[in-house]
Amino acid sequence: MSELSDHPISASRRRFLESAIAGGIAATSLAGDALAEIGKGTENLPPKIPEWMKTPGDPVGSQLYGTPSQFEKHVVRNVPKNAAQMISASSRAPLQDLDGIITPNGVFYERHHGGIPNIDPEQHRLILHGLVEKPLIFTMEDIRQFPSQSRIYFLECSGNPTYTKPYGKTASDLVGLVSCAEWTGVSLKLVLQEAGLKPEAKWIVAEGADAAAMTRSIPIEKCLDDAMLVYSQNGERLRPQQGYPLRVFLPGFEGNMSVKWLRRLKVTAEPAYSREETSKYTDLMADGSSREFTFYMEAKSIITRPSGEQRLSAPGFHEITGIAWSGHGKISRVDISVDEGKSWQEAQLQDPVLTRALTRFRFPWRWDGKPVVIQSRATDETGYVQPTLAQLIAVRGENSFYHNNAIWPWRIAANGEVTNAQV
Amino acid sequence: MSELSDHPISASRRRFLESAIAGGIAATSLAGDALAEIGKGTENLPPKIPEWMKTPGDPVGSQLYGTPSQFEKHVVRNVPKNAAQMISASSRAPLQDLDGIITPNGVFYERHHGGIPNIDPEQHRLILHGLVEKPLIFTMEDIRQFPSQSRIYFLECSGNPTYTKPYGKTASDLVGLVSCAEWTGVSLKLVLQEAGLKPEAKWIVAEGADAAAMTRSIPIEKCLDDAMLVYSQNGERLRPQQGYPLRVFLPGFEGNMSVKWLRRLKVTAEPAYSREETSKYTDLMADGSSREFTFYMEAKSIITRPSGEQRLSAPGFHEITGIAWSGHGKISRVDISVDEGKSWQEAQLQDPVLTRALTRFRFPWRWDGKPVVIQSRATDETGYVQPTLAQLIAVRGENSFYHNNAIWPWRIAANGEVTNAQV
Repeated sequence: MSELSDHPISASRRRFLESAIAGGIAATSLAGDALAEIGKGTENLPPKIPEWMKTPGDPVGSQLYGTPSQFEKHVVRNVPKNAAQMISASSRAPLQDLDGIITPNGVFYERHHGGIPNIDPEQHRLILHGLVEKPLIFTMEDIRQFPSQSRIYFLECSGNPTYTKPYGKTASDLVGLVSCAEWTGVSLKLVLQEAGLKPEAKWIVAEGADAAAMTRSIPIEKCLDDAMLVYSQNGERLRPQQGYPLRVFLPGFEGNMSVKWLRRLKVTAEPAYSREETSKYTDLMADGSSREFTFYMEAKSIITRPSGEQRLSAPGFHEITGIAWSGHGKISRVDISVDEGKSWQEAQLQDPVLTRALTRFRFPWRWDGKPVVIQSRATDETGYVQPTLAQLIAVRGENSFYHNNAIWPWRIAANGEVTNAQV
Repeated sequence: MSELSDHPISASRRRFLESAIAGGIAATSLAGDALAEIGKGTENLPPKIPEWMKTPGDPVGSQLYGTPSQFEKHVVRNVPKNAAQMISASSRAPLQDLDGIITPNGVFYERHHGGIPNIDPEQHRLILHGLVEKPLIFTMEDIRQFPSQSRIYFLECSGNPTYTKPYGKTASDLVGLVSCAEWTGVSLKLVLQEAGLKPEAKWIVAEGADAAAMTRSIPIEKCLDDAMLVYSQNGERLRPQQGYPLRVFLPGFEGNMSVKWLRRLKVTAEPAYSREETSKYTDLMADGSSREFTFYMEAKSIITRPSGEQRLSAPGFHEITGIAWSGHGKISRVDISVDEGKSWQEAQLQDPVLTRALTRFRFPWRWDGKPVVIQSRATDETGYVQPTLAQLIAVRGENSFYHNNAIWPWRIAANGEVTNAQV
């Protein structure tokens, strides 16, 4: 019966726990201050029975596909004013209201170039042609038949934020064009092996089945590395906003290269020099040259709590928390400054720290009630350190639009109000 | 400028990739068979331009809170017939349609004992009293002020499945009372430290603010170990179905102990012996005794694809995939049998393998078109091996209802139809 018996807590673990509670757990507040810094004494016990305990609640299955509480109606995508149209528009994830590293699909950021097509997966086809031994067409059922893989990765628009003022007020306004999910699909390399690549194959041009026929050129090295064809996000099929029924996914690369609603992969010797890799998504430097095909999103971080338009209720203990990420791999550390950048202290990183995924950081802090500027600075496993905006502009000049990964400071006033410190 | 320069792909990585593609990638099908086993040749190129490329799609922000594609309307919670009421009912996650390890909040399984209360978080309070130095009342704002943590854990009902026949047809029917999410909240130990535990504290009785006042007793060892008070799930606040605005979360324990809509924690010397830990959620053994307070969910696994009511389209390559989990820690291996349990082969486990979380397993398989029975068997890091139903019944007798973690086989007919092999 050994395999079937119940597992007691191991003896050593039990001894540890018993010694930990041997004399009770002394009351200790978070920063060693007076008892019960958080919470109130119970002089007013018992509180009245709330209304929702007096009658049965909604039945099981009253939402076959569930939605958030009516009290969370403000936690939705952040659509910039006058930008709710189908050509070249975006909406942002409400980062300041989110916890952890997984972005729920309902508020995952959007960026479209010709609106959101409503694609019937039965009719959808992927064409793989160009410099291949045998061109192929796949149905969605074909794609699902390949061996699958699941990975947690961030996805980020290359203009997150742009360099143009005015900068936004909230964390979402500033860098809400980043989200993170568990993606499931097939290794692109495996699909390419079915067709066979010719020796002169150097690029793959991906085309979307949207009205913009969104087109980007992907270097063959990436296609043979960690690139995926993705059909599911956070367990369920991709949402239409994220490329249903199929998209490319290029971990760590600027978001628009992970072409949504994927209908075509053309293997070529040269890039396509499409609109979205020439006129757009390039950076005009001070000397008049353009950075193009920059691909990787550099290390970045943002404090999401406390952040712009939030308010600290009172002096005392507050956790500083936020997210950090790098297109080049894992975040190795995040530092926090609470003195306008004069000094920095290392934050805690939440396990698991995954490559090219959001990493949640946390830093315990006691606010003394005086005005202060707080900011976070990410370092990735290559040793790259997130720069200040001044450092970035010194290198890139004033004409760049995309690829701004600057440190972003928040100002906290004596009344607890938090505002963007870089305006 | 070193910190700001772009990162080239490292030289050694580039050499590796260049050698990999030096002579092109030879076309190789998944199992070394004829070219292009998956996908069709492109003789019919070009296919016509689909309708959805001819006009702009829906604008950005057309869904401020998004929903799945209209073509995925069948992927919803699975509500047993005649069970859609508020007293003691459940709905199941559609496991056979899900990928990866994260269960989206919209289809996370439900189990309620008095319906789903609609709680205003401003009015909600948590009372902590009993054998503590100083009883405390917390608002939700108080709870949010504690240092936070995020963890990916499964949650499972203890009757998943029950021992009673008829057994279900689909993976969801059978074991859809399990789901997995990233939970964010505060360490319960930290909250207890604010109040201070008296030496005689051995249990904490948790009570929900639902119409059932759902009550369970939690051993103090768990409360001082990895127990959490949770307010967020997969990034956003808990849904009402999962305990909005606050629940206990006890990693690896049977689901109903992770009391939802948490309003009270009473520290005691003895368990409460509440209805849900005496009349329910105990196992009647063959000798007439009852197993009570069993707490931990034992190691389990299920093949979700191919699974009941699915159909293999044709002989050839098929991936066998599913999920495994254990309340005792990490899954260490999953074995697959494709010969009615006579022999077993090790499946691949998807990284990251996390403690007390779902683990996705995959096994490449070539179906020869003959009738076959397939099944999976999980082993956890304690060495415990998932038993067969016959082995379980031999130990537990015929009277048990909960805590069935048996291996579940699927039968595949010559026409590809998949059915429950254990009926």
